[in-house]
Amino acid sequence: MGGVVVTGVKRVDPKLVESFSSIGVATVHEAQGRKGLLASNMRPVWRPAHIAGAAVTVEVAPGDNWMIHVAVEQCQPGDVLVVAPTSPCEDGYFGELLATTLVAHGVKGLIIDAGIRDAADITKMKFPVWSKAIFAQGTVKETVGNVNTPIICAGQLVNPGDLVIADDDGIVVVRKNEAASILAISQKRDADEAEKRKVLQTGKLGLDIYSMRERLAEKGLKYVKSEE
Amino acid sequence: MGGVVVTGVKRVDPKLVESFSSIGVATVHEAQGRKGLLASNMRPVWRPAHIAGAAVTVEVAPGDNWMIHVAVEQCQPGDVLVVAPTSPCEDGYFGELLATTLVAHGVKGLIIDAGIRDAADITKMKFPVWSKAIFAQGTVKETVGNVNTPIICAGQLVNPGDLVIADDDGIVVVRKNEAASILAISQKRDADEAEKRKVLQTGKLGLDIYSMRERLAEKGLKYVKSEE
Amino acid sequence: MGGVVVTGVKRVDPKLVESFSSIGVATVHEAQGRKGLLASNMRPVWRPAHIAGAAVTVEVAPGDNWMIHVAVEQCQPGDVLVVAPTSPCEDGYFGELLATTLVAHGVKGLIIDAGIRDAADITKMKFPVWSKAIFAQGTVKETVGNVNTPIICAGQLVNPGDLVIADDDGIVVVRKNEAASILAISQKRDADEAEKRKVLQTGKLGLDIYSMRERLAEKGLKYVKSEE
Amino acid sequence: MGGVVVTGVKRVDPKLVESFSSIGVATVHEAQGRKGLLASNMRPVWRPAHIAGAAVTVEVAPGDNWMIHVAVEQCQPGDVLVVAPTSPCEDGYFGELLATTLVAHGVKGLIIDAGIRDAADITKMKFPVWSKAIFAQGTVKETVGNVNTPIICAGQLVNPGDLVIADDDGIVVVRKNEAASILAISQKRDADEAEKRKVLQTGKLGLDIYSMRERLAEKGLKYVKSEE
Amino acid sequence: MGGVVVTGVKRVDPKLVESFSSIGVATVHEAQGRKGLLASNMRPVWRPAHIAGAAVTVEVAPGDNWMIHVAVEQCQPGDVLVVAPTSPCEDGYFGELLATTLVAHGVKGLIIDAGIRDAADITKMKFPVWSKAIFAQGTVKETVGNVNTPIICAGQLVNPGDLVIADDDGIVVVRKNEAASILAISQKRDADEAEKRKVLQTGKLGLDIYSMRERLAEKGLKYVKSEE
Amino acid sequence: MGGVVVTGVKRVDPKLVESFSSIGVATVHEAQGRKGLLASNMRPVWRPAHIAGAAVTVEVAPGDNWMIHVAVEQCQPGDVLVVAPTSPCEDGYFGELLATTLVAHGVKGLIIDAGIRDAADITKMKFPVWSKAIFAQGTVKETVGNVNTPIICAGQLVNPGDLVIADDDGIVVVRKNEAASILAISQKRDADEAEKRKVLQTGKLGLDIYSMRERLAEKGLKYVKSEE
Repeated sequence: MGGVVVTGVKRVDPKLVESFSSIGVATVHEAQGRKGLLASNMRPVWRPAHIAGAAVTVEVAPGDNWMIHVAVEQCQPGDVLVVAPTSPCEDGYFGELLATTLVAHGVKGLIIDAGIRDAADITKMKFPVWSKAIFAQGTVKETVGNVNTPIICAGQLVNPGDLVIADDDGIVVVRKNEAASILAISQKRDADEAEKRKVLQTGKLGLDIYSMRERLAEKGLKYVKSEE
Repeated sequence: MGGVVVTGVKRVDPKLVESFSSIGVATVHEAQGRKGLLASNMRPVWRPAHIAGAAVTVEVAPGDNWMIHVAVEQCQPGDVLVVAPTSPCEDGYFGELLATTLVAHGVKGLIIDAGIRDAADITKMKFPVWSKAIFAQGTVKETVGNVNTPIICAGQLVNPGDLVIADDDGIVVVRKNEAASILAISQKRDADEAEKRKVLQTGKLGLDIYSMRERLAEKGLKYVKSEE
Repeated sequence: MGGVVVTGVKRVDPKLVESFSSIGVATVHEAQGRKGLLASNMRPVWRPAHIAGAAVTVEVAPGDNWMIHVAVEQCQPGDVLVVAPTSPCEDGYFGELLATTLVAHGVKGLIIDAGIRDAADITKMKFPVWSKAIFAQGTVKETVGNVNTPIICAGQLVNPGDLVIADDDGIVVVRKNEAASILAISQKRDADEAEKRKVLQTGKLGLDIYSMRERLAEKGLKYVKSEE
Repeated sequence: MGGVVVTGVKRVDPKLVESFSSIGVATVHEAQGRKGLLASNMRPVWRPAHIAGAAVTVEVAPGDNWMIHVAVEQCQPGDVLVVAPTSPCEDGYFGELLATTLVAHGVKGLIIDAGIRDAADITKMKFPVWSKAIFAQGTVKETVGNVNTPIICAGQLVNPGDLVIADDDGIVVVRKNEAASILAISQKRDADEAEKRKVLQTGKLGLDIYSMRERLAEKGLKYVKSEE
Repeated sequence: MGGVVVTGVKRVDPKLVESFSSIGVATVHEAQGRKGLLASNMRPVWRPAHIAGAAVTVEVAPGDNWMIHVAVEQCQPGDVLVVAPTSPCEDGYFGELLATTLVAHGVKGLIIDAGIRDAADITKMKFPVWSKAIFAQGTVKETVGNVNTPIICAGQLVNPGDLVIADDDGIVVVRKNEAASILAISQKRDADEAEKRKVLQTGKLGLDIYSMRERLAEKGLKYVKSEE
Repeated sequence: MGGVVVTGVKRVDPKLVESFSSIGVATVHEAQGRKGLLASNMRPVWRPAHIAGAAVTVEVAPGDNWMIHVAVEQCQPGDVLVVAPTSPCEDGYFGELLATTLVAHGVKGLIIDAGIRDAADITKMKFPVWSKAIFAQGTVKETVGNVNTPIICAGQLVNPGDLVIADDDGIVVVRKNEAASILAISQKRDADEAEKRKVLQTGKLGLDIYSMRERLAEKGLKYVKSEE
């Protein structure tokens, strides 16, 4: 049936990526209007972990990890490998040897909507991996797929070269041409939150800081004394 | 549709709560006749963690965390916030800023039958949280709910002021007027178990300690030699 | 209805077991032709953990842990307890006291297709446990089952005396009469992987090391330039 | 550990129950302020089905259906049996013989947060059953539980004598002392919906019928022409 | 935060849609290279059902069905409404009144990655609906979303105007500009299968019809006599 | 890696199979001591359905249905095809063409721990199928597996030639050499149940028929009057 490897993909600007290295997934998700999150069953193999990088996308057959080997050649330092099977699968597509080769090519981490194995080694290497399962089940190398085509990974569209940020809260994708504006909004949110944090630490209430009382009353919220 | 905040709720006696601080969830659950456990998909964000406190209950709309802000004002030092959505939801209702405000008010921890975010920060703060998901998904502030009314959280009825104990094994709720008697039984169980532990460490069998052999035989248990 | 305890079960050769202590589950699974893995929802209570031992099998009724007490007597140093309920159950069959008695009898760890409790204590003791749930729910002692009969545990047939290996990737079972040959293949795989690791660390591609390019082309893989 | 059977429970007024026989679960749920629904994994064994009746509650041990036999004696014509296990279980607690005895006692149907069996016979008998699983797995009769005490069934508190309504959309519980007022509101909703249905059938839009346009605009909804 | 309704969306050619009315989802999925399937938990409310139409897409907040009302105005005869929440939700967004209004506007069916209610009425109306849950839980009208923007629904990208085909096997999406070529391939597949069906009905083996024996032998398949 | 097809497998006696054609899965499961049930997520594609036959077992790779074609040649009239993937998979391994070829060879039905497609056609053909999913997802033909070797299917060991019985309650397997004795016990159970049914229809209680009252009292069951 044939597959395609797209070469020479344009990545999100590496300087922008660098700036995202201190920004959390929740902040970026909010900054872009609460979109772009991958499904919540995608969990880090070890914690805490945080990465930001340009997506190299891989579409694989169920139980077949051949295309990951193909994808390594397309990776550049600073990339993040994003892998999705064409039908649901939790086999262990990825282990310590593949992690070793990705490290050798400067890849920052792996996002895979399937299983991985060698979890203990990957943890020891501190190679960041997000997956939906840890499962020793081996895979074959029989069916070709695609590298660097748009894919749906864990419920989210990821284009090659898009910015991918992952931390203990999950994974968010940002379109490469939106990364600059999302960075600015994210940084502003972080600054605002630092202010709010200081106020909240004094014991002041969100009810007052955010002036919620009037609107709550309008919506019909009532306070009643316990009769106990 | 309107919501209600019940004020002046009577809490379980704080001295009793203090005494539960060294007692595990499994022990309390057994002590009260094997009841009161929340569902097993409620897991601590970090381990080991153990809290005991009086429940401040919050009923929220799916994808809407407004009432958590309302609830903070009702919290006293030693309380535990217990949050349940009116329909199943795993959005990230709660993050580091809300944890900060709860800490400022002396709240001991959060139990939420939904998702939370800022897991890395919450772990760093060592603020105890039990949830069914870690998910960066943001929520809105549009629909009012209830604070300090009886709620069903993760399959268990929780009344405001009830005692809530949580550790790595999950969460158990104890009615406030039963806390004293459950404490006594729990402490007796812990003492008994300390005795048994010493005997078991010597290699003596539970079969003999608990005199099980006769009853097993009555039930028809047979021993046969392997023919291999 | 009656149950059976089979005594005098022949174990896999302890010297072979010893040799498996440095070999991972994924390697063994591959070495025996990608078979023998238990289901991926069986997870270690703490990580990293690795055990190898001879299976003592236990078949229990749902919500009833009586037979685990019976099984302890059948355990020898170096054994691994493998427990499966007769219908799906996530109750907490096993806690710190049972762990204490197993330690006293030299048992290396527990594999249970159900829940366990006292997770914090078990973690502190460093007693290795793999389960599908952590749940404080207590069990009864009313129904007899079987010890050391063949069981299906988490989707895999386990015979008493079979070799069981478990690590952070899950659990694999090896028939006792195949353990010697699987050991040889596993050791060869580990040696081969050590070679490959060195090559991959230099940045050389799996595509070239494994000579994949020709076969990929035959299967129709095409490389195209991004038009972006 | 002992169990309790509460006798002489006061039921919701049978005349009210009769009036609910033509009202759907969704309507009742809305009428009482969107509360009282059991979890969505509770599904009818055959469709379409609709019942309304007074709850006889049963709390059973996992894998043990003894108390259902005890509960039959407490049933009156017009009752609905509501069964919940003390820990999650999908065993087949209930089959055609129990259905036969319930029919003989005039019971209208069964709600069980567990499994049932003899699905083909139950379907042929047209005995209404809602369960979370169909599973042939048999149960034992070893552990006593409770009849006609308050229980949590599929995430909802059910008191003995409460009104239970079930149809193809699921199950809703109404407190017995609220049934009269909820009936009035439900009937009003049904009448209103009949009006709306006629208008909607003409092609008129909900946007206009419910005057939504202004509020949508206030919330920032914009209409843009496709540039395709 | 604001939402967008895109008007004047170009639909897939209605004549092509008409031709797809006799072609199954599995066939279309194969014809386009095994892509485009929505997740398998999307099930028809009643069976058998089959629809083909142009997608009107709707993105809704969790627990909020306001935008479905907005979307009705954008529907044309022959359209299929495709609805996805911004975070996972199984509430009953859609019932008999909304079905009535869709019928009045000539809409062929509903695909929703969430819950629906009034299942009995919808079944009686024979209005085709695919959903991931049947759940009476009501929704609010507080948060705006989007109509006719590209959405991810049940793991698949759906653009407004794309062809959507649904039957008892699930749902497949076809890009509007690929519909003509996919139709041709699908029709050819159906014709080929009719031929094969006739041959298979005679008892001839797929092994021979598809000439599989040689390739199986190359892959190492062996035939051995049972020694039993 | 190679696979094996075992030929000349000895089947359970066809006369015994014939006698099981009127016996339900629940009865057989009880008759053999409550064992042999496949997992409860295995559901019939259409209902009611009932089959009994000799197992032809097939082990397939995930997403690869090649071996089903191989297995057809090994089928005899009266057989039941039992298929399990080597790792969890819900792809649509089986459709109307394969059903057609099985019908041509006299096969009674299919049990598959994976997905199937062409559900509408299979329903129309009245070919009995039990699966864990209905999913149009296609499969490849690249990896060989095994036919007529022992497999684990949905949590149960199935040997080639074993008796398999399936109905609306699920699936049970009986060892071929135990079929005669299980038949006798099953028929006795059915006769006993017919007696009990008649008594229960008169309104007599199971409590009395089975003389449960004394044992319940011994276990501590108490009757208390409602104080309401």
